Amino acid sequence: MKVAVLGTGIVGRTLAARLAELGDEVTVGTRDVEATMARTEPDAMGNPPFAEWAHAHPQVTPATFAHAAVDAELVVNATSGNASIAALEAAGRENLAGKVLLDIANPLDYSKGFPPSLSVSNTDSLAEQIQAAFPEAKVVKSLNTMNASLMADPRRLADGDHTVFVSGNDADAKQVVTELLQTFGHTDVIDLGDLSTARGAETVLPIWIRLWGALGVPMFQFKIVR
Amino acid sequence: MKVAVLGTGIVGRTLAARLAELGDEVTVGTRDVEATMARTEPDAMGNPPFAEWAHAHPQVTPATFAHAAVDAELVVNATSGNASIAALEAAGRENLAGKVLLDIANPLDYSKGFPPSLSVSNTDSLAEQIQAAFPEAKVVKSLNTMNASLMADPRRLADGDHTVFVSGNDADAKQVVTELLQTFGHTDVIDLGDLSTARGAETVLPIWIRLWGALGVPMFQFKIVR
Repeated sequence: MKVAVLGTGIVGRTLAARLAELGDEVTVGTRDVEATMARTEPDAMGNPPFAEWAHAHPQVTPATFAHAAVDAELVVNATSGNASIAALEAAGRENLAGKVLLDIANPLDYSKGFPPSLSVSNTDSLAEQIQAAFPEAKVVKSLNTMNASLMADPRRLADGDHTVFVSGNDADAKQVVTELLQTFGHTDVIDLGDLSTARGAETVLPIWIRLWGALGVPMFQFKIVR
Repeated sequence: MKVAVLGTGIVGRTLAARLAELGDEVTVGTRDVEATMARTEPDAMGNPPFAEWAHAHPQVTPATFAHAAVDAELVVNATSGNASIAALEAAGRENLAGKVLLDIANPLDYSKGFPPSLSVSNTDSLAEQIQAAFPEAKVVKSLNTMNASLMADPRRLADGDHTVFVSGNDADAKQVVTELLQTFGHTDVIDLGDLSTARGAETVLPIWIRLWGALGVPMFQFKIVR
């Protein structure tokens, strides 16, 4: 499958590498390819420069948001939540129309320091805002409730014995995403319902962040015991 | 231990019965005892009238909020979130001073129908509002992330193999609550940190409610796999 991963941070890189490893044809989208490739300093989160990662992953093609999206069958929004709408606009409304848009971003607001709050929450969600802005895309929210390494390879923790959620208005699009999740190794996929249920998935972040603080490591996961 | 459970809904009843079963001296607080005992109709949630429950649990004493709180060593806020501050005011500031106040309420807002949103969230929490209103109480947030029956008797699901969170500013108060949780049967108690971490615990509700919808039953729980 041709997949565009929008976002060159650690989440985008981790998913892109995993998709390529699983045989997908992967393009990583960024606003300005030359500028992204020219950076030689670690990014704001302390990750190595993208070019270094890109050279180590020659099977993944860096491209502009629009070039990444135009031929993609599946588009993954792995940009930071506050930049997502702008990134998707740059990807091009026409390049998203009719496609599955897997939104894994969280609308984290770091403006008041750490821990971040959410810039959208409770009575709305980033996923719904994206769906409203791009009504022809088939938005599915998933994967945002865990560390990037577990998104891509859940068996790294407890042999994958934990839970991932999907929310979306289009049953076929949720099915495409569910199959992708299963390919990654996710075994317990809970369909929360329509896209408004992303309000539930996104408000997991405030406790995720506190758990990270309490446990000292991000390698933990929610399992819904029932 | 003398425990005042404030609130006569299903959560208050379930915890009061469990505490009495475990040997605590339990009073259930309500605004107007006569009025509460005189009700013969099921409550808004369809639970049998309180008097019926009270007659079946003669070891639990109904009392006004203030009478319940005055002699209590531990006060449990099991009122509905939007009524909690008023109920605690009725219990009496002086009757809460210096005591552990276990807040298990959720600030659910049903004004726009079902599913409810939260009336406080993200950048504040009900627990912090209670602490601010009653600075001499030792507020600990816990148990709000699960069904009442699992709060009181976690072994009813998966032999108790799931997680409960505590948040609070007073380490001794958190220890008192942690021991109580363990008495109930909770085996995995995660201390999230100070009371501001209740923002995390309270924003679990939006996904809890959607999971209830998706799974069709409230007998599920979060386990933090790590």
